[in-house]
Amino acid sequence: MEVKAGDLLESINYPSDLKKLSEVELERVCKELRQYIIDVVSVNGGHFGASLGVVELSVALHYVLNTPYDQLVWDVGHQAYGHKILTGRRTVFHTNRIYKGISGFPKRAESEYDTFGVGHSSTSISAALGMAVASHFKGEKDRQHVAVIGDGAMTAGMAFEALNHGGIENSNLLVILNDNCMSIDPNVGALKEYLTAITTSRQYNRFRDDIGHVLSKLSELGPNALQIVKKIEKSIKGTLLKESNLFESLNFRYFGPIDGHDVKQLVKVLRDLRNIPGPKLLHCVTVKGKGFALAEKDQTKWHAPGLFDKITGEIKKAVNDKPQPPKYQDVFGHSLLELAESNPDIMGVTPAMPSGSSMNIMMKAMPDRAFDVGIAEQHAVTFSAGLATRGMLPFCNIYSSFMQRAYDQVIHDVAIQNLNVVFCLDRAGIAGADGATHHGAYDLAYMRCIPNMVVSAPMNEEELRNLMYTAQQKDMGPFTIRYPRGTGVMPDWKRPFKAIPVGKGRKICDGEDVAILTIGHIGNEAVKACLELSSEGIHPAHYDLRFVKPLDQDLLHEVFSTFGKIVTVEDGCIQGGVGSAVLEFMADNGYTAKVIRLGIPDKIVEHGDQHELWSECGYDAHAIVESVRKIAVSRTTRSMAS
Amino acid sequence: MEVKAGDLLESINYPSDLKKLSEVELERVCKELRQYIIDVVSVNGGHFGASLGVVELSVALHYVLNTPYDQLVWDVGHQAYGHKILTGRRTVFHTNRIYKGISGFPKRAESEYDTFGVGHSSTSISAALGMAVASHFKGEKDRQHVAVIGDGAMTAGMAFEALNHGGIENSNLLVILNDNCMSIDPNVGALKEYLTAITTSRQYNRFRDDIGHVLSKLSELGPNALQIVKKIEKSIKGTLLKESNLFESLNFRYFGPIDGHDVKQLVKVLRDLRNIPGPKLLHCVTVKGKGFALAEKDQTKWHAPGLFDKITGEIKKAVNDKPQPPKYQDVFGHSLLELAESNPDIMGVTPAMPSGSSMNIMMKAMPDRAFDVGIAEQHAVTFSAGLATRGMLPFCNIYSSFMQRAYDQVIHDVAIQNLNVVFCLDRAGIAGADGATHHGAYDLAYMRCIPNMVVSAPMNEEELRNLMYTAQQKDMGPFTIRYPRGTGVMPDWKRPFKAIPVGKGRKICDGEDVAILTIGHIGNEAVKACLELSSEGIHPAHYDLRFVKPLDQDLLHEVFSTFGKIVTVEDGCIQGGVGSAVLEFMADNGYTAKVIRLGIPDKIVEHGDQHELWSECGYDAHAIVESVRKIAVSRTTRSMAS
Repeated sequence: MEVKAGDLLESINYPSDLKKLSEVELERVCKELRQYIIDVVSVNGGHFGASLGVVELSVALHYVLNTPYDQLVWDVGHQAYGHKILTGRRTVFHTNRIYKGISGFPKRAESEYDTFGVGHSSTSISAALGMAVASHFKGEKDRQHVAVIGDGAMTAGMAFEALNHGGIENSNLLVILNDNCMSIDPNVGALKEYLTAITTSRQYNRFRDDIGHVLSKLSELGPNALQIVKKIEKSIKGTLLKESNLFESLNFRYFGPIDGHDVKQLVKVLRDLRNIPGPKLLHCVTVKGKGFALAEKDQTKWHAPGLFDKITGEIKKAVNDKPQPPKYQDVFGHSLLELAESNPDIMGVTPAMPSGSSMNIMMKAMPDRAFDVGIAEQHAVTFSAGLATRGMLPFCNIYSSFMQRAYDQVIHDVAIQNLNVVFCLDRAGIAGADGATHHGAYDLAYMRCIPNMVVSAPMNEEELRNLMYTAQQKDMGPFTIRYPRGTGVMPDWKRPFKAIPVGKGRKICDGEDVAILTIGHIGNEAVKACLELSSEGIHPAHYDLRFVKPLDQDLLHEVFSTFGKIVTVEDGCIQGGVGSAVLEFMADNGYTAKVIRLGIPDKIVEHGDQHELWSECGYDAHAIVESVRKIAVSRTTRSMAS
Repeated sequence: MEVKAGDLLESINYPSDLKKLSEVELERVCKELRQYIIDVVSVNGGHFGASLGVVELSVALHYVLNTPYDQLVWDVGHQAYGHKILTGRRTVFHTNRIYKGISGFPKRAESEYDTFGVGHSSTSISAALGMAVASHFKGEKDRQHVAVIGDGAMTAGMAFEALNHGGIENSNLLVILNDNCMSIDPNVGALKEYLTAITTSRQYNRFRDDIGHVLSKLSELGPNALQIVKKIEKSIKGTLLKESNLFESLNFRYFGPIDGHDVKQLVKVLRDLRNIPGPKLLHCVTVKGKGFALAEKDQTKWHAPGLFDKITGEIKKAVNDKPQPPKYQDVFGHSLLELAESNPDIMGVTPAMPSGSSMNIMMKAMPDRAFDVGIAEQHAVTFSAGLATRGMLPFCNIYSSFMQRAYDQVIHDVAIQNLNVVFCLDRAGIAGADGATHHGAYDLAYMRCIPNMVVSAPMNEEELRNLMYTAQQKDMGPFTIRYPRGTGVMPDWKRPFKAIPVGKGRKICDGEDVAILTIGHIGNEAVKACLELSSEGIHPAHYDLRFVKPLDQDLLHEVFSTFGKIVTVEDGCIQGGVGSAVLEFMADNGYTAKVIRLGIPDKIVEHGDQHELWSECGYDAHAIVESVRKIAVSRTTRSMAS
């Protein structure tokens, strides 16, 4: 839905237009920009609080910097709506996150102002440093490189790696620490406490209080003493404040903290900083959701609230009389607590996704057994491994695409040692509107090649519960359960737990001629397909593999002995995925059959809703129908064991 | 070769024996332990300098702590030889790193004193924190948990993630920072400079000098002033030193720096620290190679020198009159410089492996174009991506198993954006004596599922050069070249560069009945196999695929049209690897053939030399012969297009 912007904002298509304004007009620009974001997001959806928090920063950066010559990298990027609106995309902003519309994150293909594609957190300093080093090498001394990174993103290790390197490169790097004390959930960890201490000036204040008292006495001793006092004060400012700072320790000149909602001050400070060479950090304090009272108050809820009434703040829900199936994440969250109540070894670990994974349910009920470790997937996995060595059974919940961050830790710290850690990969498969960076496309391929690892995917809520129940049994070793974003299919989902034999699939329906093998929730598309096909007199059999690893050998022997035509369906990349595992079984066991593999093709899939993208990728119900129809009428040899 | 230990060391089988000694005897234990390490490693090989550097620390830790009840985690673990010798493995230490012998790293299956298996760096704090949190939960207040981590390992992000979390957990965690200014190569980065500043007391000294001067003047003002001076000094000690410390910023109590070679002081300090609850860090300064003068002097060379004369220090080299083939890493190193000399866009990036990757050749010749970024694989990849956005062409060299650390960055920052970054994965396939943690087993599987990614592997030195030449051509996108540890096959390797068409394999020899498809260096085993088979009258064809992605479609059509029996060979996991890619081609194109896939089976492969492990895994020349022989005489259907 298109929305009209304020008059001043309407006149700004690019930063060059912004630069024509006087400084006093900037406050109005901020006001209109904030309102425009509220107006559009309330009717179109998307991320909300983060962009409201950096309205002034976005305006000030494009006002002061010479973008895109100066390189601006937004960390994560869900806060970049203001940036997008100011850089040529105001009029298409209503297509944000919609299939074929603009991306919800900065994206190089979309604009030269988007210098670096983002989505996952904590990449900005590394990327901006790479740019800065390139400029330095090219002798472009006037070019500035800015990474805007939140205090939450700063907890991820790669940000620290980049600071460690950046501190010894003499290149023009400005890190703007956007300190709002939040990830999606409240930020956690020692760094957060440290930043809070700085902003409340604890450090400086305490020292000043300690010394101030004696200094004041000193002053009474006469003019000589007064001069000495001034020297001491200068020395304290010059040395203590400078050197005591964590970022100064890493060779970054530290500036701040400053109020990130004072656009005039921001402009002034950025003007100064733009001309300072070398690595530097500006600590900028902002409020997530700034300017929309409800969002300021409940920042997690308003991170990405969906559609809402911008006046009343009422979040709109689909009206439906019938009971609806739950989200998979909630089935996980409730079932984990239920299991933890009867199994005292269970612990929960989430890297900064308490609400996104619904682990907040266990965290609330059992605060001493569930841990938010910050945006730190690597640590989350190895911390879980450490827990497991002491006999605990951690359920480590990480979004599928974020698990890519901890791949080595899964192999090196869990699988090689065959430790009992359960990995629950939420948002597996096509993730929807978040797009390319967030699709959990590769997990089946990258997990199933790891020895000792069980890889499973539930077709529905009951199966998720039962896989979780199965995984928490004694000494199951590394156990992966992957499931998609969004809702399942069972309104009546809370059924008694039942153990599933590891590596056993199940038959969904008998059939003839063609067998459909599916893994996970996408199997429900196959159910729809079978229904449609049966009306044409085509009756494929349908099996839910449940496990990619170990594969159900008995089931596959049955399938390959019975069927010469097989369609595999997975919500994951077809290169190396479950279809390939089935081909490996076929080759290893001397079967021959016509096998069609449906799944995410070998390309970057952009954003859209899940059904749109399943369709685009050719594995929704309709595509399955087509594949089966085509294969069913073709003449091929029956399978046979050789 | 077995070696006798000193008398006192001979009497120590376990820490319980060590504890019986008086403190004054510990120095002799250290001396004998150091000598024993020198004696054994000089004749058996292995890591050297790191273990010499922590002799006193190893003795002191086992003397003071109640291991294994107290949990001791060695980061990386190549410094744990002393620990192994003191904990039940003195008499088998001569089997260190030998096939079927003890592991060169701590390993849970080997000893209860090895609380956590290691090999890759920077996992220790996360693991120890997991253990500590479990103990805290169990109410075991008397249990201490110690992570010994080097200053090099401290630069990796996951160490910071763990500190950030550890700082807010009230559990018994002691981090011992083993500061020797080294990774394998000299440590780099801002953190290293900071630690050096602490140890040389720059920070405190500068402040003290600044203020000392004025304070001394102050004292002259009389007894009142003197009292004030003392108060100020106290305040400086209490606040400045405490709060100005980077680790204190993260809520760790900081102790040190202390001399890590003074065993008596170590014992005293550890006794104190053992009883201090909560997170704390002991900064311990050591010398890598301590006690062996040459190793102290050239620490990189003596990291793992091979066999040597312990008296003269002469490193033993295999005597051979014939010209020998070079190491692949050296072909990489020299060729990179050669390419960089003619292509001004090329830059080099290594995460702390200048000598291991031979990137030091370029670093020396072109210091402004080649970067050691510290142990920071994640940053290395995204930094490379940043360089690429500015038109540079980074060659980012990372060992295959270490690349697991940067998997998300490869997908998220390079592949999705289709940037021109060349990944050179050294130590791909079976890595040899370093064992399970270091085998580059999974890269073909985890790389080939990534869109936009070219995945290649050279069969020899000339091919490596030509693949590098190919990769540096304009706009090739993300391009992976993987090659093994060790030497190639061409003494006369330096041939003129030639471009290879991307996705084109090559025929090594014609043949009949059976086709062998290989990827990379392991193809040379197939050459040997063909030679052996021809003496029996079996003449398989042999193709070098060169590219796992894109596959050579023409070549495969030729193969599947001609041969009904195919053996694929790869030095990588068979689940999802190149053999699976061939199966995918076969299925997608309607061919049927008997395909046998040889490669690393679905299990954790331990240490040994490469040939031993290729044999164990069933894909050395002998195993290829057997597979071909078996298949050549069996009756199977010819392949056909359906």
